[in-house]
Amino acid sequence: MRKIRMGMVGGGRGAFIGGVHRMAAALDQQIELVCGAFSSSPEKSKASGEDFYLDPSRVYGSYAEMIEKEKNLPAEVRMDFVSIVTPNHVHFGPAKMALENGFHVVCDKPITFSLEEAEELVELTKKTGLIFALTHNYTGYPMVKQARDMIAAGELGELRKVVVEYPQGWLATKVEDSDSKQAAWRTDPKRSGIAGAMGDIGSHAENLAEYMSGLKIDELCADLSAFVDGRLLDDDGNILLRFQGGAKGIMHCSQISVGEENALNIRIYGTKAGVEWHQMQPNSLIFKRQDQPAVIYRTGIGELSEAAQYASRIPAGHPEGYLEAFANIYKNFATCVQARLAGEEPNPLAKDFPTPEDGLRGMKFIIAAVESSKAGAVWTPC
Amino acid sequence: MRKIRMGMVGGGRGAFIGGVHRMAAALDQQIELVCGAFSSSPEKSKASGEDFYLDPSRVYGSYAEMIEKEKNLPAEVRMDFVSIVTPNHVHFGPAKMALENGFHVVCDKPITFSLEEAEELVELTKKTGLIFALTHNYTGYPMVKQARDMIAAGELGELRKVVVEYPQGWLATKVEDSDSKQAAWRTDPKRSGIAGAMGDIGSHAENLAEYMSGLKIDELCADLSAFVDGRLLDDDGNILLRFQGGAKGIMHCSQISVGEENALNIRIYGTKAGVEWHQMQPNSLIFKRQDQPAVIYRTGIGELSEAAQYASRIPAGHPEGYLEAFANIYKNFATCVQARLAGEEPNPLAKDFPTPEDGLRGMKFIIAAVESSKAGAVWTPC
Amino acid sequence: MRKIRMGMVGGGRGAFIGGVHRMAAALDQQIELVCGAFSSSPEKSKASGEDFYLDPSRVYGSYAEMIEKEKNLPAEVRMDFVSIVTPNHVHFGPAKMALENGFHVVCDKPITFSLEEAEELVELTKKTGLIFALTHNYTGYPMVKQARDMIAAGELGELRKVVVEYPQGWLATKVEDSDSKQAAWRTDPKRSGIAGAMGDIGSHAENLAEYMSGLKIDELCADLSAFVDGRLLDDDGNILLRFQGGAKGIMHCSQISVGEENALNIRIYGTKAGVEWHQMQPNSLIFKRQDQPAVIYRTGIGELSEAAQYASRIPAGHPEGYLEAFANIYKNFATCVQARLAGEEPNPLAKDFPTPEDGLRGMKFIIAAVESSKAGAVWTPC
Amino acid sequence: MRKIRMGMVGGGRGAFIGGVHRMAAALDQQIELVCGAFSSSPEKSKASGEDFYLDPSRVYGSYAEMIEKEKNLPAEVRMDFVSIVTPNHVHFGPAKMALENGFHVVCDKPITFSLEEAEELVELTKKTGLIFALTHNYTGYPMVKQARDMIAAGELGELRKVVVEYPQGWLATKVEDSDSKQAAWRTDPKRSGIAGAMGDIGSHAENLAEYMSGLKIDELCADLSAFVDGRLLDDDGNILLRFQGGAKGIMHCSQISVGEENALNIRIYGTKAGVEWHQMQPNSLIFKRQDQPAVIYRTGIGELSEAAQYASRIPAGHPEGYLEAFANIYKNFATCVQARLAGEEPNPLAKDFPTPEDGLRGMKFIIAAVESSKAGAVWTPC
Repeated sequence: MRKIRMGMVGGGRGAFIGGVHRMAAALDQQIELVCGAFSSSPEKSKASGEDFYLDPSRVYGSYAEMIEKEKNLPAEVRMDFVSIVTPNHVHFGPAKMALENGFHVVCDKPITFSLEEAEELVELTKKTGLIFALTHNYTGYPMVKQARDMIAAGELGELRKVVVEYPQGWLATKVEDSDSKQAAWRTDPKRSGIAGAMGDIGSHAENLAEYMSGLKIDELCADLSAFVDGRLLDDDGNILLRFQGGAKGIMHCSQISVGEENALNIRIYGTKAGVEWHQMQPNSLIFKRQDQPAVIYRTGIGELSEAAQYASRIPAGHPEGYLEAFANIYKNFATCVQARLAGEEPNPLAKDFPTPEDGLRGMKFIIAAVESSKAGAVWTPC
Repeated sequence: MRKIRMGMVGGGRGAFIGGVHRMAAALDQQIELVCGAFSSSPEKSKASGEDFYLDPSRVYGSYAEMIEKEKNLPAEVRMDFVSIVTPNHVHFGPAKMALENGFHVVCDKPITFSLEEAEELVELTKKTGLIFALTHNYTGYPMVKQARDMIAAGELGELRKVVVEYPQGWLATKVEDSDSKQAAWRTDPKRSGIAGAMGDIGSHAENLAEYMSGLKIDELCADLSAFVDGRLLDDDGNILLRFQGGAKGIMHCSQISVGEENALNIRIYGTKAGVEWHQMQPNSLIFKRQDQPAVIYRTGIGELSEAAQYASRIPAGHPEGYLEAFANIYKNFATCVQARLAGEEPNPLAKDFPTPEDGLRGMKFIIAAVESSKAGAVWTPC
Repeated sequence: MRKIRMGMVGGGRGAFIGGVHRMAAALDQQIELVCGAFSSSPEKSKASGEDFYLDPSRVYGSYAEMIEKEKNLPAEVRMDFVSIVTPNHVHFGPAKMALENGFHVVCDKPITFSLEEAEELVELTKKTGLIFALTHNYTGYPMVKQARDMIAAGELGELRKVVVEYPQGWLATKVEDSDSKQAAWRTDPKRSGIAGAMGDIGSHAENLAEYMSGLKIDELCADLSAFVDGRLLDDDGNILLRFQGGAKGIMHCSQISVGEENALNIRIYGTKAGVEWHQMQPNSLIFKRQDQPAVIYRTGIGELSEAAQYASRIPAGHPEGYLEAFANIYKNFATCVQARLAGEEPNPLAKDFPTPEDGLRGMKFIIAAVESSKAGAVWTPC
Repeated sequence: MRKIRMGMVGGGRGAFIGGVHRMAAALDQQIELVCGAFSSSPEKSKASGEDFYLDPSRVYGSYAEMIEKEKNLPAEVRMDFVSIVTPNHVHFGPAKMALENGFHVVCDKPITFSLEEAEELVELTKKTGLIFALTHNYTGYPMVKQARDMIAAGELGELRKVVVEYPQGWLATKVEDSDSKQAAWRTDPKRSGIAGAMGDIGSHAENLAEYMSGLKIDELCADLSAFVDGRLLDDDGNILLRFQGGAKGIMHCSQISVGEENALNIRIYGTKAGVEWHQMQPNSLIFKRQDQPAVIYRTGIGELSEAAQYASRIPAGHPEGYLEAFANIYKNFATCVQARLAGEEPNPLAKDFPTPEDGLRGMKFIIAAVESSKAGAVWTPC
């Protein structure tokens, strides 16, 4: 076994999610950053490479250059996978090229700019057999896995209702007109795609709901808004959900809910019991039963599911947070790549990370939400 | 000044809400129970009268008998008002007869069985000038009034979004087939009306949202369900809301959300700030601001609005609960009746209780939700 | 059965605890206020009587007058018991006189000004057989009773540790120099006794700890302070506790903990499990187990102890608060008095209210704490 | 600038805190693990080296061997510092030898086994000028720094009271007799020292209280217990505190509080305001004011102190936990070492990590607590 080697696309100085990916990749010490094309500006890419103590010869001016040159490096040196942390419109290009050149991929969400691109990446991953992890990081939390496993084991009975929320407040004013790089691309249809909040956080909410419940959204009725004057993409959305099999649900995602930080949360109710989980208190899972006191499952306490235990690093009461959950995707991905390199089967628990198929679900959700809303908030298949 | 005298319709042994009304009326010692028609069964009415230490001659077999006989008692003895705590289909009859015979009225919600009845009570109240309080008790909480007053004062800016939830779990199984009197009438279209959960708790959610926000719901899109096999009325509903003036919202009410107690809560966001309130933690109001720490308003602490202070009885940290909020309706109603008896104007703060007009709003909401859902969850004016 | 009749000593206009007693007595409609000596000022007493709609002939200038005159009224009219809501130095006089003249007593805490007085009341109650309830109201909460019953049933195993806290902040500045009537007498040795915070709230903490744990404090080591310049009595205290049987504990009570409202809380740990309860969230009891998730017991949910059920009035999720817990003492007291009047045995659950013996324990605790602290915070038997 | 190179003492397979140190060191990518003496068993050390993908030639059989051999490696290869993650009795040896051979040191707490050793390390650090960080990790949390800075700026006024708690439950039974390596050494006087819980977690509580308040404990009165039969060291302690300058306090630390995870928390009250912080909800700091609503400071929100901002990596609402706080010590240490290597002054904010002087304070506290308790819980200078 050896550490696997990461090349990064995007994530230069001043980026938010690039730093998250680097910390998440570093935490478990199975991955080392060896090269990158950190910015569309070569100077900025170079400066970033210095920040990360990289060999200047492996700091590239573009992802294409990186993939070309790394491919020609000796096997014991060259990168094993590409991590793509650019805005949405620059996911597909490097992902496709990486796969076509034999590199595994980690990619930020949503998977692509368009549905067609997403479908092509699904196909390409199947064809190449390469490993592709999509960073829907919220499903990396131990208590999310615990809830999923309890539901799959039937502890909630037949599911009836899903309530998933993702309120934020940071776009309540027109910050894209100030110097917020984060706000600028997320509210720009050319870089973000057809959706704003729905793409940025709605796709996380959809992924969390489907992952935890094990259900697929069948159709939805979405009322999206751009509350801030002059904003081109939705910054708020209220959605009715119907799931395959008859469960119903509600989702609301917002970036104009003033004072909300990153308050993703979910409640699922079945015929026998319910669960509730909040991303901002991620180590607790509330299990609710009829006519009985609620039970508070906690990361690290008691007989949790294998997946919940596998996703935790330290004893109960030592809070594990966002970076640890994000790192669980990298840890599982790295474990699978290491096993591939060693010609072994990975621990089955390590296969638990979001795939291009999950990314395709996300794209279908985003498109359905936007189409439903444009038609006046009418029911639309997903 | 003297205590005012209450005659009760319904609320005999085994009833839930009747006991609540009696405690709420008793708490502030402005009201005494002097007579009642506690049950459609005269024996049960009589037994209940004994429980309440009443003069047997003033325990009646029907509301009609009560109103007739009390009317003929001397002014210094007879009841001043009727409190109606029966199932929905028996609200209109006693309310109408009470008003027509000069008695003020307190009535449980929803105001009536049908829209027409509600309209008639609105008219009758106007015509008679009598005082009529509808027990949408949740607006009796001090922190609800604080939120309303902050919103009215513009502290949230222009409102954009309202999220109101009312999850309960007690009807997750078919308890109406067991001996639950509460469940039996609420799930019976003959006694409850066209709606189940929407009438029982949805109308509270609607009332709370409109009271606190100061906005009216303009149209809605409701997806109601009867999840429990064989149930005739909705036990769950998910609703998109659009308010007059452009704010949007979401409401969900449920009686099949296993493990939820009585978890009414609301969040309202404006351009400048947001508020959050939970009925089960009623003495806290979270005030959320952009890029600033949240502030926790508390019953009894600091410079609260006059209405919030007027609605509180004891110092901060001594929790005031459901009965105190309910009692605020009786206290305000009683204060208005006492002022009327004394030929004075009441304290303006005492006029703050739900009216027949609020009841009519509730009926319109219930009907719109049911019609929207029946048509396949389509947008329907409210 | 009939309502029992209350005469009140103290509690005139502007008093805090008098109003609490009246609301608590009124809530369950078993008690009516018929007379009172509400103030040492006859004018103020008279004005208060009007506020309460009393017959002016039964509004007295002193407790002695009240007891004398009521005694001579016909049995079907005269008061059944005296409720004493005066500052500490005026507890003993009316209590003694009431008992000597055949009246039952409800008395605020601490029971008396001195140990000797407390001992005399214990004796007098035994001798007369009259019913005497001391309003250590916090043990009236359903979840306190649930915890007590779980501990008594051995669900925590052998007890090892008790942590009880009672922080308040309202005396953090010298408010007794302003017009705070509440602060003035509590900080005045002539009216409050040898202790300030220890008498006012420390005695509640002691009562709660002994009631819930079933253990007696054996000795203590107390470090009391008067932090506010010029204050004559303690406004803060930190205390080490040793219980009979070997458990240990810690108590701190404070009236200078700025920003704290009325944050009484307790945690008890045994060999098998622990419990945690907070007065400001009184309807939850956290049950903690080794290597298992915590369980949240809630008022009204599941299989609670008989006493916990008996102490609750409304369904789960409808918060019951301070007044309801306080009313539980009056309800139980009234039920016992009614049974006595009827020559019956009361429901055994109704006998659950604090007694003069509990008041004597409180006095011993207060004295031990003050003596320990004066000696330099040394171990002192309790 | 380059990454700095770490050699680790202890922390082989199965260790808890070693893994924490490695993750904390890795997170910010300023440090690489290059060598180690991971176990007193050479085989185990070797196996651990493989786990960490190390060059076998740099996996040593003892810390002495490691220091000797690394010292002789070329400067561009050899380790820059030693990280000591062994049980308490093996802190002093490697720390002393590292300092004497020119290596910087990170050391787990408590700093040493005895007071004399602690004093010697203080001296040696002064003499050598080398950088020495002690991992009292809880002061690494952003909100702890925020509280410290608010107190230092006088926002609480003059401090009066400190309440610090550290309850755990994991040693409630005699787990040291099972295969718990963690429990075994912590309860063994030969490896842990004179104290059990006081050394393990009491020293954290002391460090947190002194760091946040800026006050020094002047004297204490400690009642320590070994509740579990046959245990040789304290597993619970209740302590009265008096601070220099007149503030008072209370501390309790426990490892037998069944069901408690790692519930370190602190409340500090001054003449003007108070603060409250809980390690298990580390991103919130409650600021309490007299007669005003509480304010909830949050990591990443609003105008926090420079130190609080410097200690945070990701936007608000993305929970940062234990590892991030721990990593803040490594990040600051590494930044100082990098500056030293570059001949520069580090960012002053990077100098904020616990020092040998803090470790000496901890030893004095531990010794005072044990001596106080042995003498019967009497006041003892600290």
